[in-house]
Amino acid sequence: MSTDDTTDTTADASTDAESNCGANTDTESSCGVSPSEDGDDAASESKCGASSDSSSSATSSSGSSCGASKAETTEKKVAATVDDFDGDPGSLLAVGLGPGQPEGMTGRAREALLSAEHVVGYTTYVELLPDEITESADELYDTPMCGEVSRTEEAIDRALAGHDVAIIGSGDPNVYALAGLALEILESKGATASMVDFEVVPGVPAAQSCGARLGAPLVNDSVSISLSDHLTDMPTIESRLHAAAKEGFTISIYNPWSRKRRENYRKCCEILLEHRDPDTPVGVVHGAGRDDERVEIVELRELSELGETDLVDMTTTLVVGNEETYVWDDRMVTPRGYESKYDY
Amino acid sequence: MSTDDTTDTTADASTDAESNCGANTDTESSCGVSPSEDGDDAASESKCGASSDSSSSATSSSGSSCGASKAETTEKKVAATVDDFDGDPGSLLAVGLGPGQPEGMTGRAREALLSAEHVVGYTTYVELLPDEITESADELYDTPMCGEVSRTEEAIDRALAGHDVAIIGSGDPNVYALAGLALEILESKGATASMVDFEVVPGVPAAQSCGARLGAPLVNDSVSISLSDHLTDMPTIESRLHAAAKEGFTISIYNPWSRKRRENYRKCCEILLEHRDPDTPVGVVHGAGRDDERVEIVELRELSELGETDLVDMTTTLVVGNEETYVWDDRMVTPRGYESKYDY
Repeated sequence: MSTDDTTDTTADASTDAESNCGANTDTESSCGVSPSEDGDDAASESKCGASSDSSSSATSSSGSSCGASKAETTEKKVAATVDDFDGDPGSLLAVGLGPGQPEGMTGRAREALLSAEHVVGYTTYVELLPDEITESADELYDTPMCGEVSRTEEAIDRALAGHDVAIIGSGDPNVYALAGLALEILESKGATASMVDFEVVPGVPAAQSCGARLGAPLVNDSVSISLSDHLTDMPTIESRLHAAAKEGFTISIYNPWSRKRRENYRKCCEILLEHRDPDTPVGVVHGAGRDDERVEIVELRELSELGETDLVDMTTTLVVGNEETYVWDDRMVTPRGYESKYDY
Repeated sequence: MSTDDTTDTTADASTDAESNCGANTDTESSCGVSPSEDGDDAASESKCGASSDSSSSATSSSGSSCGASKAETTEKKVAATVDDFDGDPGSLLAVGLGPGQPEGMTGRAREALLSAEHVVGYTTYVELLPDEITESADELYDTPMCGEVSRTEEAIDRALAGHDVAIIGSGDPNVYALAGLALEILESKGATASMVDFEVVPGVPAAQSCGARLGAPLVNDSVSISLSDHLTDMPTIESRLHAAAKEGFTISIYNPWSRKRRENYRKCCEILLEHRDPDTPVGVVHGAGRDDERVEIVELRELSELGETDLVDMTTTLVVGNEETYVWDDRMVTPRGYESKYDY
């Protein structure tokens, strides 16, 4: 596969974000996540992306909801804004790949990628694309983990420069993923979503991919919660876990464990056990759709100790049953309530 | 399209459930839902399906978690059990179609349907299948609304009789849908999931299809709640709505309104307003992926009155923003938190 992670085709747009930042190799130590991001999520980024391309310690505009281009002051270059681009913009699609393998992609996603001139994404996902797509694209632009913000900005700059661009991610762009970031960065550049015909092409989220592998654990009211406290504080996450566990939701847990978040995992297990029986079934799906996929159904009481095994890491999604979930023939089943209404 | 809704190819298996029940035309008055089911859901069924095919008033095994064939007594025929079938069983796949149109289906779903001998589903979804699939199947079996239980049993009987069967639904089989029901009926027949190589082929859920149309409303922790109190009681639904609204989840609401459930909708709007600002953005997606699709973003304060318009019915999904969700360029954006960490 020929990827292009060095050439900046929008050089005339005065953006040098990528050349300084995006294609850098960021390690866990610099971005706080384990080396494999997944599960619709790319929650964690080092301070390497986007417009923070100088070596200064410019502070971020904390708490704002991302107004027009935040041209910070001291020693800081301003990333390209909409005014830096001449000519007609192209289009920008945020495309969800589903679980990762080509057959998990929708027909719409496939068509979108086949018609894109540039395909932008995290290296792992770009490498999972089928040949027909990588061969049809004029350019592939991939960056390793911790490049999400810069990668998204790069995709936007390319669209504003006139290219038809698809930015890809696993799962669905609306599940802990790129759709929102793309809109926020567009806004910060003084551009609009309409200007690049921005569209989200949905994909199968990790909760659904994993639910399918487990049987039917999610057929009633359900929540998704990420244990990453990089962008949401831990007290909020804990409060949500309490509420979800108390109210009988099934719970899909994204980003359950990383070396830096052992405590979040431990706390999560503790909260779940406060509200649910120790024998509540929990589906553990590691690397859904990847070569190292593993699917296990355990009891809630066992979950805590799994944190220190290689079954649970950033590529794992946990599916926690509710009070009625049971295991039958190696499948998790959460009854929908039919059995109380129908006779079968 | 040639559909077969009369021939019972498993007649030798002594099941007559379908001929009595499944293919009947059930109206709203008999099953309690409006005439279009959707949104991954087929929550509501009349007492027409499955083995309850006599005219007796046999009571159901209320509350049980569905043990082996519930052979009720008086005047009641027993549906086919695994012992009624000779020979090797075929396979059973529960396939999620996504939003409905062929291009919303995954490659895996398409392959599964192309290789199925029998395709079973609600008439509306069978009619949405592309020609290549309807033409490749040996048989299509569709029933109108309110045939979910009988339809699923029919699919299982055909698989037990040796056919490779796909049972289809919109969205994902794990979201208020067929995956669980299929496992429960398999169990009630004394069969096992392994016996028919039961597998769930996931699809894009309505929340994701609608989220994509709205922009990026769901990029943080999120819940799905159905307002149908056919299978979940209303106090439980209300309690879940309170918890979700209080804890800052974005909320996808399935089955928001039907003529028989005006009160549920009203109550839902009231609960949301107890916890969220009246100007909270709410995405209203009617008939996602259908000819009558409509997408609107309103404020929470307006939601209540929409219940009496044709924008909100059983084909509508509501996407309720959290405290941080805003509308920009006709899109809903729920910030993920990047803006407090990064400078763009």
